[in-house]
Amino acid sequence: MIGVLGGMGPAATADFMRQVILSTPARRDQDHVPLLIFSDPTIPDRSSSIIDSTVPSPLPMLRDYALRLQRAGATAIVIPCNTAHHFYDQIAGCVTIPILHIVDAVREELDENTDLRSGGVAIMATAGTLRSRFYERKLAQAGYGCIVPTETEQHLVDRTIQLIKGGQSEMAKPFAIQAVQSFRQRGAGSVILGCTELPLIKEVFDDILPHVDSTKALARRCIRYISDGTS
Amino acid sequence: MIGVLGGMGPAATADFMRQVILSTPARRDQDHVPLLIFSDPTIPDRSSSIIDSTVPSPLPMLRDYALRLQRAGATAIVIPCNTAHHFYDQIAGCVTIPILHIVDAVREELDENTDLRSGGVAIMATAGTLRSRFYERKLAQAGYGCIVPTETEQHLVDRTIQLIKGGQSEMAKPFAIQAVQSFRQRGAGSVILGCTELPLIKEVFDDILPHVDSTKALARRCIRYISDGTS
Repeated sequence: MIGVLGGMGPAATADFMRQVILSTPARRDQDHVPLLIFSDPTIPDRSSSIIDSTVPSPLPMLRDYALRLQRAGATAIVIPCNTAHHFYDQIAGCVTIPILHIVDAVREELDENTDLRSGGVAIMATAGTLRSRFYERKLAQAGYGCIVPTETEQHLVDRTIQLIKGGQSEMAKPFAIQAVQSFRQRGAGSVILGCTELPLIKEVFDDILPHVDSTKALARRCIRYISDGTS
Repeated sequence: MIGVLGGMGPAATADFMRQVILSTPARRDQDHVPLLIFSDPTIPDRSSSIIDSTVPSPLPMLRDYALRLQRAGATAIVIPCNTAHHFYDQIAGCVTIPILHIVDAVREELDENTDLRSGGVAIMATAGTLRSRFYERKLAQAGYGCIVPTETEQHLVDRTIQLIKGGQSEMAKPFAIQAVQSFRQRGAGSVILGCTELPLIKEVFDDILPHVDSTKALARRCIRYISDGTS
């Protein structure tokens, strides 16, 4: 049983669940993957706590939920929130079961799809994720050059994410489009939707740049983990 | 925290989660409802076990999950599977927290919407749910007259549900349409989508008969429970 440490935000967790179902070849209920999902939207904001050390940290709740998932019988954990991966080592350190890293999942998508590799790979993520630099570090180790947002672009991305979290996806779209067009002008050949809110409006990216949906990547990673057992 | 005993099927559980999010007035993650979801698609088929006593019963797993949800901190339980409500009393008997009944949720939707009450209310559900007769009994107590499917109509409904569970929603639609058209010809003024797979294709019902989506009804019941505390 895969444990899902979710709720960050809840719509992203529901989208993750849907992607796991869609990625599973199944003809009846019993062919699907058992999931245990803690979807707790009250986990303190990850991005703010990375940027401002006076803001409450989500780490105690993240560690607590990871332990609860392990105790409840999960054999591996996934966290469908990119920003929470800033705390990956500290969460992984308190459980004995593997936590499948979302950037490994994204890297596997880049490895598999040659059309994603022409030009730089732009990272569209929260300010906290970018401040943390875990995407750039892990992708650089795998040989991928990243394009990180300028201050203006990041402002557009932050606004996009905030509007989606507030249930105003339609209002979010023009900001997302402006950011991705700017990435393309600066030489990006593809864009990583490196915040699990962004795939909720992924249709807007289709005509601008090829993209990697981090939620879908994690769902596919999850299915592969169940099939071959490697984390 | 609401405990969700799910996975029957997994897409219906994901739909329930989505409906809870959509029914919540929220502007940021922290405004949403914490959910703890066991989505175990390996729970034995509910409908078959009601119809054929030689088939393995889902009851031991349903009771086990209800207890695990209570132990993990859930303050109320919902089961986004209509057929599993055949076992309602036996599941409720092993926990001390309330289980919000899906038919109560559906009845509340009927009470609130006058356009659903002209003519009889047709029940579209699994053969197991209809054999169990809990919908008819509970709705009759509330003064609603039900139209139950003929053998031919039930065959269409069973085929619809089976195809949706197998990921073939497009192929399911003509069967669903034929069943609902037949209900209308027999005097139904509305139809209850009394299997949580059916709302996954609910757009096909729009032009034929007004309907109650049991998944959405349960999600709304859940939000009301959190607001006013009555089960």
